[in-house]
Amino acid sequence: MTGKPDLGALFGATPASTFLGLEKCDDLDRMDASSAYIGAPGATPYGSVGAYCRNAPDALRKATSSLTANIDRHNFDLGGPVFPAGSRRAVDCGDLPFNETDFARNRTVIQDAIRKIVGKSAVPILVGGDDSVPIPMLEALSATGQTYSELQIDAHIDWRKSHMDEELGLSSTMRRASEMPHIERIVQVGARGIGSAHSDDHADAIAWGAAFVTAHDIHRSGVEPALACIPDGANIIVCIDVDALDPSIVPGVIGRTPGGLAYHHVLDLMTGAARKGRIAAMDFVEYVPEADIDGLGGLATAGLISAAMGILARQDARLPI
Amino acid sequence: MTGKPDLGALFGATPASTFLGLEKCDDLDRMDASSAYIGAPGATPYGSVGAYCRNAPDALRKATSSLTANIDRHNFDLGGPVFPAGSRRAVDCGDLPFNETDFARNRTVIQDAIRKIVGKSAVPILVGGDDSVPIPMLEALSATGQTYSELQIDAHIDWRKSHMDEELGLSSTMRRASEMPHIERIVQVGARGIGSAHSDDHADAIAWGAAFVTAHDIHRSGVEPALACIPDGANIIVCIDVDALDPSIVPGVIGRTPGGLAYHHVLDLMTGAARKGRIAAMDFVEYVPEADIDGLGGLATAGLISAAMGILARQDARLPI
Amino acid sequence: MTGKPDLGALFGATPASTFLGLEKCDDLDRMDASSAYIGAPGATPYGSVGAYCRNAPDALRKATSSLTANIDRHNFDLGGPVFPAGSRRAVDCGDLPFNETDFARNRTVIQDAIRKIVGKSAVPILVGGDDSVPIPMLEALSATGQTYSELQIDAHIDWRKSHMDEELGLSSTMRRASEMPHIERIVQVGARGIGSAHSDDHADAIAWGAAFVTAHDIHRSGVEPALACIPDGANIIVCIDVDALDPSIVPGVIGRTPGGLAYHHVLDLMTGAARKGRIAAMDFVEYVPEADIDGLGGLATAGLISAAMGILARQDARLPI
Amino acid sequence: MTGKPDLGALFGATPASTFLGLEKCDDLDRMDASSAYIGAPGATPYGSVGAYCRNAPDALRKATSSLTANIDRHNFDLGGPVFPAGSRRAVDCGDLPFNETDFARNRTVIQDAIRKIVGKSAVPILVGGDDSVPIPMLEALSATGQTYSELQIDAHIDWRKSHMDEELGLSSTMRRASEMPHIERIVQVGARGIGSAHSDDHADAIAWGAAFVTAHDIHRSGVEPALACIPDGANIIVCIDVDALDPSIVPGVIGRTPGGLAYHHVLDLMTGAARKGRIAAMDFVEYVPEADIDGLGGLATAGLISAAMGILARQDARLPI
Amino acid sequence: MTGKPDLGALFGATPASTFLGLEKCDDLDRMDASSAYIGAPGATPYGSVGAYCRNAPDALRKATSSLTANIDRHNFDLGGPVFPAGSRRAVDCGDLPFNETDFARNRTVIQDAIRKIVGKSAVPILVGGDDSVPIPMLEALSATGQTYSELQIDAHIDWRKSHMDEELGLSSTMRRASEMPHIERIVQVGARGIGSAHSDDHADAIAWGAAFVTAHDIHRSGVEPALACIPDGANIIVCIDVDALDPSIVPGVIGRTPGGLAYHHVLDLMTGAARKGRIAAMDFVEYVPEADIDGLGGLATAGLISAAMGILARQDARLPI
Amino acid sequence: MTGKPDLGALFGATPASTFLGLEKCDDLDRMDASSAYIGAPGATPYGSVGAYCRNAPDALRKATSSLTANIDRHNFDLGGPVFPAGSRRAVDCGDLPFNETDFARNRTVIQDAIRKIVGKSAVPILVGGDDSVPIPMLEALSATGQTYSELQIDAHIDWRKSHMDEELGLSSTMRRASEMPHIERIVQVGARGIGSAHSDDHADAIAWGAAFVTAHDIHRSGVEPALACIPDGANIIVCIDVDALDPSIVPGVIGRTPGGLAYHHVLDLMTGAARKGRIAAMDFVEYVPEADIDGLGGLATAGLISAAMGILARQDARLPI
Repeated sequence: MTGKPDLGALFGATPASTFLGLEKCDDLDRMDASSAYIGAPGATPYGSVGAYCRNAPDALRKATSSLTANIDRHNFDLGGPVFPAGSRRAVDCGDLPFNETDFARNRTVIQDAIRKIVGKSAVPILVGGDDSVPIPMLEALSATGQTYSELQIDAHIDWRKSHMDEELGLSSTMRRASEMPHIERIVQVGARGIGSAHSDDHADAIAWGAAFVTAHDIHRSGVEPALACIPDGANIIVCIDVDALDPSIVPGVIGRTPGGLAYHHVLDLMTGAARKGRIAAMDFVEYVPEADIDGLGGLATAGLISAAMGILARQDARLPI
Repeated sequence: MTGKPDLGALFGATPASTFLGLEKCDDLDRMDASSAYIGAPGATPYGSVGAYCRNAPDALRKATSSLTANIDRHNFDLGGPVFPAGSRRAVDCGDLPFNETDFARNRTVIQDAIRKIVGKSAVPILVGGDDSVPIPMLEALSATGQTYSELQIDAHIDWRKSHMDEELGLSSTMRRASEMPHIERIVQVGARGIGSAHSDDHADAIAWGAAFVTAHDIHRSGVEPALACIPDGANIIVCIDVDALDPSIVPGVIGRTPGGLAYHHVLDLMTGAARKGRIAAMDFVEYVPEADIDGLGGLATAGLISAAMGILARQDARLPI
Repeated sequence: MTGKPDLGALFGATPASTFLGLEKCDDLDRMDASSAYIGAPGATPYGSVGAYCRNAPDALRKATSSLTANIDRHNFDLGGPVFPAGSRRAVDCGDLPFNETDFARNRTVIQDAIRKIVGKSAVPILVGGDDSVPIPMLEALSATGQTYSELQIDAHIDWRKSHMDEELGLSSTMRRASEMPHIERIVQVGARGIGSAHSDDHADAIAWGAAFVTAHDIHRSGVEPALACIPDGANIIVCIDVDALDPSIVPGVIGRTPGGLAYHHVLDLMTGAARKGRIAAMDFVEYVPEADIDGLGGLATAGLISAAMGILARQDARLPI
Repeated sequence: MTGKPDLGALFGATPASTFLGLEKCDDLDRMDASSAYIGAPGATPYGSVGAYCRNAPDALRKATSSLTANIDRHNFDLGGPVFPAGSRRAVDCGDLPFNETDFARNRTVIQDAIRKIVGKSAVPILVGGDDSVPIPMLEALSATGQTYSELQIDAHIDWRKSHMDEELGLSSTMRRASEMPHIERIVQVGARGIGSAHSDDHADAIAWGAAFVTAHDIHRSGVEPALACIPDGANIIVCIDVDALDPSIVPGVIGRTPGGLAYHHVLDLMTGAARKGRIAAMDFVEYVPEADIDGLGGLATAGLISAAMGILARQDARLPI
Repeated sequence: MTGKPDLGALFGATPASTFLGLEKCDDLDRMDASSAYIGAPGATPYGSVGAYCRNAPDALRKATSSLTANIDRHNFDLGGPVFPAGSRRAVDCGDLPFNETDFARNRTVIQDAIRKIVGKSAVPILVGGDDSVPIPMLEALSATGQTYSELQIDAHIDWRKSHMDEELGLSSTMRRASEMPHIERIVQVGARGIGSAHSDDHADAIAWGAAFVTAHDIHRSGVEPALACIPDGANIIVCIDVDALDPSIVPGVIGRTPGGLAYHHVLDLMTGAARKGRIAAMDFVEYVPEADIDGLGGLATAGLISAAMGILARQDARLPI
Repeated sequence: MTGKPDLGALFGATPASTFLGLEKCDDLDRMDASSAYIGAPGATPYGSVGAYCRNAPDALRKATSSLTANIDRHNFDLGGPVFPAGSRRAVDCGDLPFNETDFARNRTVIQDAIRKIVGKSAVPILVGGDDSVPIPMLEALSATGQTYSELQIDAHIDWRKSHMDEELGLSSTMRRASEMPHIERIVQVGARGIGSAHSDDHADAIAWGAAFVTAHDIHRSGVEPALACIPDGANIIVCIDVDALDPSIVPGVIGRTPGGLAYHHVLDLMTGAARKGRIAAMDFVEYVPEADIDGLGGLATAGLISAAMGILARQDARLPI
């Protein structure tokens, strides 16, 4: 025998056309689910690099191919099946259309989708696409009339006023969030190394009241300090740029930065957030399959999304998390 | 100069035909050693994938090529040479024959070898091969008349009643162990993510009395909770599926699962077990050289086997571990 | 879009001809800097392998290409810009000439450079080259009339009397250091696995008074025990062989050894040393670009050098570290 | 103003005739409660010292005097009121009669009471009295037909075959427990210093399979190793000799032993046990009011009993703990 | 020799008429100090218990008697003398007058004093007195025009609307603080056991946005989570009710509650606050000398006040803390 | 029953005339023991306070009264009996004579005794007495011709040149040690608060090369940093001033200082020292029975001395520690 063996063959799996082999949901208005995987290849890309994460939503589906026959098995990250008895499953809503020139159109499409999903009492799991994708998601949540705490997990702080003459690009996400009245608290976890943040940007964020817990803080003191910054009972938006994880765990990102978080840190942050309040929306962005090493980062990202689905199913069914 | 430099050249090593350049032992009946490296390319493979780890025993030998001239040097994982003064060395017994169709024959061959090694007061280090290989090793130990605690270190729990109509395959190893009267305690460390375990399988294991310490537990609380589950003074079988380690440490496995153990966790578990009681047998299985990334996983696995040999030599000579 | 996106394009960077795009310093006698990056392709290579790290100084410069436009941005490893307001920047002094046959000449060249840099009140950051490179750096410091504590961070202890008939090669660095009267304390951090150390070498080091904190010690107890071994107020030479880091973090080394340090450990050691006393000189050696995996190790090494520059700039300006 | 102020006056409390001012239950056959505080001044005292803890049940009631007006307030050890909405309260069943000469009678009285309480689906909280008191409680549980794990928290191991010609005294409690067929697992936490245990007793306990986690282990590794020894889903009897706590926390014991557990350790052990399985019975013994220092130990013990009641109320109502 | 030896005799100290023998400041308008110790025997006592802490300010001065000759010595809690070279000392402003019937007068007196001290750029260290004393201090700070984060360290949360018909008493301190517009963030550390908090009070506090870090949280995760809740660069008021400390450390309180903080926790919280922002005011309340055990609690409280003075002197002089 | 029960009655003990009921040794020249308890009521007391610890050696013997019948029982601080099979016991050599006026005589007496004990290959456990007592012990060791590392565990650093015109008093112990050529390394653990140390004294100690690990360091990072400062294989003198422990653990000292070490810290330091090298001598000083609270501190000190005897017996017999 030569070459790599095939895990799918071992597990009796078939190629995944949806994430984890979940039921596909083509009509957001008829959704009945605890959470909804929805791909967004891009929103507002910078001209110099384009929508470099466009292939992520599909690559992450493929990363779960070997598990499609196993979705009802015990997930030890959760202490039970992804979707425990008495809970509603997640669905895969496919990918939103992406227009290479009409960025406003992209944002409207994302906003509409998020609004529909939230309207059906499901939690959106928006899968980018680059980090411009969450901006319309955040905007869409203003319609709920509620206020939110945003837990951003990212190697970068994304507080630039604009970059390359674009105010809605991936380097400005948190600045834009801070300007939305319904975002009342921001906690940013995982920053490290030299990012694109001017010290002025950082000072503005501090002045706004954003709490920063660096990757180094997490390595030294664990995730509790980050979780302590989230008010008890908050509505929480969890925004994960997968470059928050160490490049040895997720090499597939455009800006690998050493010293990143471990897988269990992100798992603990998601679980802790759901214990502290209620997760209202999530995104996973910035995975670049073309930059990955042998699929390592895709597997880790898909593992985190699977765990997120399990957390959200338990939250939805008021089961212990 | 172009290309990678050669560590062996630096250290004055010669290509390894045995693990660490240890003495070869061709006749198990005449062994005088503290432990015995013995390769088993397979035992009871599933038809869909075959004996996909068959090349591991030899690949792991080659991974030690650069160290063959250094076997007497200080090993800082052990605080002294692998084989300290006053201790007996390990030997390399080569690989057992593997028959692609007569699986019962494979199991008999393994059982016979283990029985002989144990009979010579050496500790077998059985190197798979997939995780069906330990089943005959466990059976062979019934002949000693003693009872055992099994410390399994694995990303998966392996409690399936059968899989693909095979009861003795790699997904059923711990279920089979639980049915052997001489296995009186089972501690399973490292489970995470979605494995192949039905929640029923997990419930059966709990009902049997198996103790589970997940990878996440280890990241949060260290190895002490796992070691606390092993009775003081126990005879211990340490079974290591190298997918227990994180894919960044051992990428060379069929079912990479993020969130895995670190190298020092496995080192601490082996050392801790030897301090708690007596290690009676070990296996290292599921290394797939073809799935590795630039040999990283082979090196880590070989490092753990080297440390195991040092621990067993100290145990054999009643030296502090 | 196919292929990997380009981070430099995203950040508006230009290819780096100097580390981080720092000002080049061609005349060491006219330097005005807090620290000085200076490449040394080799010093005293062993014949069997040659100067196998010769390409490291340049590869590490290239690893910072995407950051050259960002040098004034916040570095979250430092809690501010690399060079904070009121501090002096680092300079890049290019590479020293390397002669493939006249090793004495190489050493003289290194000694002269270090002496000049130190004479200008800058801290040298000597970038190898293999681990023979620090020997002349250490010798050069005798001219200051001061005594030093050396903090070596390395997977190997480098206490061989000689190797391949060469006393000044990379396996003898710390033995040579111990013979220099101005080196009054040695702390060695990160040893693990089977290195090239005879147990006799280790015993000699202990007898001399060297303190050893293994990689395993660091994983179990953090960096404080290592820092506690450095006298308060000491002049400290920090010598970093990048194989001290785990192979998953820095694969690009000749002797990958599993169980290595994490990025934050090395960051904490450098920061802690600067808080305990004054860092007088540093080296980063043994990076082998040709042995790296997709540039991971180069990025991590460059990140540590960037952090070192920030620490040294703060030390120089008497700002809190 | 001179003398100590009165906390009860501050809180508007009245002297406690029952623990925490709970409803009194005079007829065990008509109990409707989640747990039942029941005092046992003694069972089988040694002649040399008599029933030296006889005043404990009442002293512990008095220690809660200042809190009787506050029983519905938030208890931060529990994250809510002792008895949360939707849960059943505890009751105080007063003290069992104690006969100074007819010890068999004392034991029968205790057995009967426990059997009745358990029969009403309440969890007994037996308050000694010395450590001979739990023996009849343990025996009474055999009637349920279930098997149990016993978590003993104590400075001493209590495995003597007999002492002063008495087999049912306080130094033999765990030996007797080990002889009961329905006790299938024993975990002993908190041993330290020189107790009354022959090394033979210790060896017998190990041979039986008892797991020991010393006070020192807890200080070094926390409570997880102790909890790991309890099987998932077990019926658990928690037996607390308050000399397990450090003498600075509970000075009121006959055999103060330095190096003891902290209050939060015992809280974590109780909480952790209830998460691991179901607490079926509890005892708190060996508090000696006359040996206390200004009531410190009484207050700590009463605090733990209050927390226990809250844990048991949540367990009873299937609320998260 | 009989009886206890006298530490003062050993150190050559004279009885303290001021705290640590500091210079007395009789005229607040002419103060030149980094901080000011000012006693307040009471403010708004409840009728049932009166001003039961009235003797604390003086008792705490006496607790420093043995140290008056040593004020310039190294304080290892601070890594140098209390008042390092280049810093301004603290002064002792004596005690404010206390009127047993005119509580409004008491509050005015406190407000005036605090306003004067703050006006002289000194940090007030208000020493109660019960926990009603901080209310006028908090009010006085509104005059600065700045906003504040309050770090309360206390076993109780003090959010009652009123108690015994008094809205300004010690059980309502934090409720009152929450109503002041210049208090924009509240972090409460150390709550445990059954306090006087209705669960409604707790819910109101959560709804307001107060962050709670319980004593148990601190024992499990250290002080970082509490510090993470304080915004970077904040003006911080540190309010310490000494019952936050464990009764074994400070027995001298009216409501001893087991499971309290250790001395080093409070030290770390004060130090951490000063690193996070600027401490603008402090209070130490609820010490009851008459309820103490052999002066233990007085000594601990005085030690914390000494450390606070050192922290504030460093903050004032912009020296590293 | 009224009053406190008697533990001795429970355990069948008789009043202790020797420590733990050990064999008395009246003739130091005929000693055959692993260690020797020897009391020294004083050496060089300051005139203002006299020999205020003179009653300690006997009070500590009495603190073991209840344990005299149990000396062969399991000591869980040691994992076996104090004196395991195959080891030599300790002996109690009674108290040395103390002269209230001839301090030189006191010192000579101590020196002679230590020299004799060491000459018989026993480890002296010198029980003060105040902290002037170790000075002659340290001097006596010069006769061995060996060099030593001193591990001082103390709330104070004791580096005063002289105090009250006395150079050999308790505040100068470590300064004197530093002047002895055979003391080549000093590690000082436990300093905190305001001691009697001029910052000059501290600076001198740093300049000499003494390593300081404060009580706060220990609370934050455990004992490993302190142990790391001791060279591997060193001859170690362990000097314990019991005020190193927290006043809640050992109240019986003249200078109670909050924030002190826990019992397990001191146990870990002693055990760790014996693992790092060889303990050559020990002292326990500064216990003041008259200042104790209900004997708490005596019990803790006696517990540590018992553990020390067990450690030394294992060291003597080359058994694992």
